[in-house]
Amino acid sequence: MTQTVPEFEDVARAGRRIAGRVRRTPVLQSAELNTYAGVELFIKAENLQETGSFKLRGATNRLLQIPDAQRKAGVVAFSSGNHAQGISRAAKRLGMPAVIVMPSDAPEIKMAGVRSDGAELVLYDRNSESREDIAAQIATERSAIVVPSFDDPDIIAGQGTCGLEFAEQMRGLGAPLDHLICCTGGGGLISGIALALQGLSPDTTIWAAEPEGHDDWTRSLTAGEVQSNPPGTRSICDAILTPQPGELTWAIGRDRLSGGCVVSDDQVREAVRRAFRYLKLVVEPGGAAALAAALFALPEQAKGQRVGVILTGGNIDPEVFANILSEGA
Amino acid sequence: MTQTVPEFEDVARAGRRIAGRVRRTPVLQSAELNTYAGVELFIKAENLQETGSFKLRGATNRLLQIPDAQRKAGVVAFSSGNHAQGISRAAKRLGMPAVIVMPSDAPEIKMAGVRSDGAELVLYDRNSESREDIAAQIATERSAIVVPSFDDPDIIAGQGTCGLEFAEQMRGLGAPLDHLICCTGGGGLISGIALALQGLSPDTTIWAAEPEGHDDWTRSLTAGEVQSNPPGTRSICDAILTPQPGELTWAIGRDRLSGGCVVSDDQVREAVRRAFRYLKLVVEPGGAAALAAALFALPEQAKGQRVGVILTGGNIDPEVFANILSEGA
Repeated sequence: MTQTVPEFEDVARAGRRIAGRVRRTPVLQSAELNTYAGVELFIKAENLQETGSFKLRGATNRLLQIPDAQRKAGVVAFSSGNHAQGISRAAKRLGMPAVIVMPSDAPEIKMAGVRSDGAELVLYDRNSESREDIAAQIATERSAIVVPSFDDPDIIAGQGTCGLEFAEQMRGLGAPLDHLICCTGGGGLISGIALALQGLSPDTTIWAAEPEGHDDWTRSLTAGEVQSNPPGTRSICDAILTPQPGELTWAIGRDRLSGGCVVSDDQVREAVRRAFRYLKLVVEPGGAAALAAALFALPEQAKGQRVGVILTGGNIDPEVFANILSEGA
Repeated sequence: MTQTVPEFEDVARAGRRIAGRVRRTPVLQSAELNTYAGVELFIKAENLQETGSFKLRGATNRLLQIPDAQRKAGVVAFSSGNHAQGISRAAKRLGMPAVIVMPSDAPEIKMAGVRSDGAELVLYDRNSESREDIAAQIATERSAIVVPSFDDPDIIAGQGTCGLEFAEQMRGLGAPLDHLICCTGGGGLISGIALALQGLSPDTTIWAAEPEGHDDWTRSLTAGEVQSNPPGTRSICDAILTPQPGELTWAIGRDRLSGGCVVSDDQVREAVRRAFRYLKLVVEPGGAAALAAALFALPEQAKGQRVGVILTGGNIDPEVFANILSEGA
């Protein structure tokens, strides 16, 4: 491994570093969803984070640590959209140029978010081009820094601040979480949260939520070693379609996560509809995977307990959201 | 006037009485909406209140004051839906029976909310029947108490707790509001908020937001006396279509509100779409009237200042929401 695996203290430092630069998102409850799930749900609405996802946390933590002299050359990121928006916003605030490499079929709302923050958008074909190569070439040309979307100690520590907040909020409610479910793409958020909870809520059991066909974390945790997804599998959960766990995120998650919950796209759509109806929240499919898991694929051990769920993002095109609502009628 | 006009102290007492029984809803911001509006917006997301609207506040404050001996006979309420849900939930919690008289064309989601809390639903025809008469008859038969939706001192004081919270939250941000915009139906919420701000933020200027054709508060404030709406006018804002200001709410509002902002249904739809896109919130049309006013009908004096907006509810049928999103494409 070429990078240092972050620890609880790195997350705590990230929390102090980005304080006041990201929103403290609320924890919500719904009597109706509790009844459906058969557990007491505590729902961290990270879709209400600025830029519409938790990604601003890691981006802010990473960019703040770039020395002044290097900031002018800017940053390059590749992302299906939420990391892109986090980086664009953080870069804009620090007066840094940003280039974002995004798949040409990314949601329009995510492209618009990047553009409106003044970042330069480079589109690539998901099937025939390598985003890593494109980003590396741009970075070389401009002496810019590539900011990975998950497998980076400062990104992981930054995302972990969501877990710090959640643990503190639960302490405020006098009710530590028995379980926490978080969706996984590359695993930046869940591994950061695992570090945070190790420090602040060590008895909480942590579960990965994943869409069918992209259950790499679930299978990796069962096998005890990294497993990949078959290429070409599709899912509505655009934000969390990553080939396999990252090096760092796996090093953190392998011993701290208890397993995975796999949900179908239809279950995710139903979770989006229930978040609309009972929480009054707009959640994108990937961002609703953990709620879908709590409602439809809850681990046996969690029944009847206090279960935390992260709603990770809300960047969904209006037409897609309208279609999902219409299907439920 | 047959009832005592409530004062700031009544709102403060209501705040202590219902503490822990209603949610403290978050105040959100959006850089994009600030740019559109040309002001700094502070958005109180009361659509995230339990039951999906602020109405639980007043209902809880009112029902808690019904003596134990009278609780068994229950309560009767008439409402287009949000007050209905507030009463149903508050009654359920206190173990009281509740009968709700609702128009037969009320949103399905509001009827479902009432039913799922175990209240008895009585439907009436908006055009040919009097909901007041129906409610009064039921109340007489059962010795139940009629709980009005706005023109009641305890309801007003309860809704005012939303203003207490907002003022405290703004104090926490170190930035008192210059202006506050709140939608008006009967005016229970805006008059309660006016009392709260008189105590905690007396320099805040308060404005009523109303849909075209239902601008009774706007015209009443201009005329200095109560004006009614012509019967039969329709609007998408089902929650706030009241014939005229209430007796108590007018007594409070007439000297404390500075005027009204009138918005079209199309502007309300656009506000619903922008809340979807930039706030990740589900807001019903009536609940988005104040945001529409901030975006499209802002009073000249408010330009460039700190403007508070209340999103009052999020109970909208999925098909209606899907249609509004589709129109914007």
